Amino acid sequence: MQSFEIDKTDLLRIKTALEGDDAELEIVLKEYHASEIAILFERLEQEDKERIINILPTDIASDVFAEMDEEHRPGELLITLDPEKRSEIIEELDYDDATDIISQLEEHEQQEILEDIDEEDASSIRALLSYDEYTAGGLMNSDLICVNINSDKKEALDEIIRQSEEMEEFNTIYVVDGDSILKGIVSIKNIIKAHADVKIRDIYQDEPVFVKADLYQEEVAKLISQYNLTAIPVVDDNMKLLGRITVDDIIDVMEQESTEDILKISGVSEDEELSGNWQEAVKSRLPWLIINLGTGFLGAAVIRQFDDVQKAIPAVVAYMTIISGMGGNAATQALAVTVRRISLSDLNDQQAYRTVLKEFSVGLINGAANGFIVGMFAVFYDGSPMMGLVLFLAMTGNLIVAGLSGAGIPLILKRVGIDPAVASSIIITTFTDCAGFFLSLWLATNLLLHHH
Amino acid sequence: MQSFEIDKTDLLRIKTALEGDDAELEIVLKEYHASEIAILFERLEQEDKERIINILPTDIASDVFAEMDEEHRPGELLITLDPEKRSEIIEELDYDDATDIISQLEEHEQQEILEDIDEEDASSIRALLSYDEYTAGGLMNSDLICVNINSDKKEALDEIIRQSEEMEEFNTIYVVDGDSILKGIVSIKNIIKAHADVKIRDIYQDEPVFVKADLYQEEVAKLISQYNLTAIPVVDDNMKLLGRITVDDIIDVMEQESTEDILKISGVSEDEELSGNWQEAVKSRLPWLIINLGTGFLGAAVIRQFDDVQKAIPAVVAYMTIISGMGGNAATQALAVTVRRISLSDLNDQQAYRTVLKEFSVGLINGAANGFIVGMFAVFYDGSPMMGLVLFLAMTGNLIVAGLSGAGIPLILKRVGIDPAVASSIIITTFTDCAGFFLSLWLATNLLLHHH
Repeated sequence: MQSFEIDKTDLLRIKTALEGDDAELEIVLKEYHASEIAILFERLEQEDKERIINILPTDIASDVFAEMDEEHRPGELLITLDPEKRSEIIEELDYDDATDIISQLEEHEQQEILEDIDEEDASSIRALLSYDEYTAGGLMNSDLICVNINSDKKEALDEIIRQSEEMEEFNTIYVVDGDSILKGIVSIKNIIKAHADVKIRDIYQDEPVFVKADLYQEEVAKLISQYNLTAIPVVDDNMKLLGRITVDDIIDVMEQESTEDILKISGVSEDEELSGNWQEAVKSRLPWLIINLGTGFLGAAVIRQFDDVQKAIPAVVAYMTIISGMGGNAATQALAVTVRRISLSDLNDQQAYRTVLKEFSVGLINGAANGFIVGMFAVFYDGSPMMGLVLFLAMTGNLIVAGLSGAGIPLILKRVGIDPAVASSIIITTFTDCAGFFLSLWLATNLLLHHH
Repeated sequence: MQSFEIDKTDLLRIKTALEGDDAELEIVLKEYHASEIAILFERLEQEDKERIINILPTDIASDVFAEMDEEHRPGELLITLDPEKRSEIIEELDYDDATDIISQLEEHEQQEILEDIDEEDASSIRALLSYDEYTAGGLMNSDLICVNINSDKKEALDEIIRQSEEMEEFNTIYVVDGDSILKGIVSIKNIIKAHADVKIRDIYQDEPVFVKADLYQEEVAKLISQYNLTAIPVVDDNMKLLGRITVDDIIDVMEQESTEDILKISGVSEDEELSGNWQEAVKSRLPWLIINLGTGFLGAAVIRQFDDVQKAIPAVVAYMTIISGMGGNAATQALAVTVRRISLSDLNDQQAYRTVLKEFSVGLINGAANGFIVGMFAVFYDGSPMMGLVLFLAMTGNLIVAGLSGAGIPLILKRVGIDPAVASSIIITTFTDCAGFFLSLWLATNLLLHHH
């Protein structure tokens, strides 16, 4: 199978079907998976979406809502539905998905929706709404299966079947005591295999990996990926079982985090939607560019200090831009490696120190190599060995600056609790521009001009 | 819980314990999770690792191997163990993990290992070794649970218990016919709930999502994340069930892919280990820097065409570096957004066209905004309205070039089947450097110099 893309034919089929009666439309819709309909929705009018949702069986309709991208506002679609259909859909949704969708709405709309639905569901959703969206609490799902540590095989299996009524999948069964304090986990396999007289306490596995509800989602993702879990239980400070986070939710988190890393080190604010319109893009990027403009004036100020050498030896200007440009790219290399490494695993002081040391050496070697090439070029093209020396030293110096700032700045930011990725190339290249201009022009002034 | 980091105290405890006798060491090791021991291994000597593996119970020892990073060569550790221990560990490992580890070894070492182990395991691993590491086949695990479509409840449950003997977790049970052709899936819940006389064919769900063994891992990751699966079955061209890919393997793939994106758009070759030494880093980055050096000479060549205006109006040099620098950063912004978007979902022609159009508008607006600022600065600081006009036009023009190249080049590369991420900032900024220098100097020559 190939991952689904909206292509004209699918869109056309739906749109034609939308002109026909509900019966036809229903037949066409049957051929699409809920997640495919969610993607098609990105291109349909509000009233068409409403009509489709009303035609679809409730379980499919709720899957469509669960699959819709946040940026395509499932909440706004939900609120327009007639209250009865709306309540059916919400009661069908997993609590965490329902919460994400409802959280997009105004306070009064949220109340309106929650009043209509089953009280138990409503209170679970209210509880989830109270957690920060970017913590374990915001990610977790209170749909899980747990059995009492003192129940026997029969009781446990009955419980599992009862609780799994609305759940599609479950791997792990959580073991709790009478106060629903998390005690451990047990696999359904071991329950099935157990003798009838066995108690859960005899076969469960204690010391499960767990997270507190207020842990940030990046940390949850690191744990799940480090311990290769398919789900992780979420507890409060008293180890009371609140819910579980399943790996499919973590996948979305990891995609988010990686996207944020890439955007931020490229000087795009993390909340720009990849598929957003140009207005959003301007809003997210212009501030960074204006910062860059400010830093650009710094570089320009450096250059303006050295008018004489530019007039006397114009060639130095052209070379200066090479030195600064190379610095910028070398810094971006060091930055990307360091930022990515930090976001996959936290570095201790020793590792941080080694990283900076490594980037220093890399800058030295790469600087000397490129400095030699550009220097040799100057020797033969401009016939000036002294110019060659100037360029060799400037290039080497600037690539060392590049390595140190590219690795050092994100590490320092991390230490002081600022997101390392905001040390975007825009910030880093300021150092390498200024250093590149200064080294080239200062060395040229002292080694070339005064011997001119 | 916090994700585990090697810190001095843990390392010290292990090292002290290593000086003691096995009994002490065993007690200390008991306190660490397999994946933590795998991380500690990154800092231990070969003989210490061997000793620890020999002390650990086989199931823990094999988990440690499964958790070790490829870059820390678990294969080399495995081959040094005594054959018996080695075979125990391999037979305990999931087939896909065993395959990954063995695939690091020489042909003759692989044979030596496979001859020692159980014939059935050996042939499964040999089969997996035959797939490309980066395809579904290379990713899949042949440990799965499948039941015959004609079996009844009792037969099915017995099968499940038998097959799950060595498996920790399973969500989905695959339904096959006599020739092990994939027919569908069934949840263990529905089997438990079914009446004794029900046949699997009455309760299974057909049309499962599946992949062919030769599908590339990026595509598998897109499917799993799009359809929110926790596992996906892998089949051959005749729909024969070969294995399944679980979501925890996909998480590693997604981390790899994101890291590659970040590194490549930053001009670092994708195979640089984040924690590699400086020699590897130089090898992976120097080629890109030398390419950049070449492109740098292009920019320099442009500058050298305009010696007169630089001599006459030195200020233009300082401003020129601002224009080109801004272009570079604007291009990196457009590049990051476009590359990331492509790697999360394939764009059809219409979407691609819209993306380029969007980046054009963004470039126009951001260019005009920054052009206005720098232009006004020139008017007041240099008292030259004409210089202001030059800079306004140059900045606007260069940020349009930035948007078009940042979005257009990766999209074109994708169309012609080249990885879009190699359109690294190093390549893109060549356009914006040359355009920035040319626009600034050419406009200055024509609008300023000739009126000078």
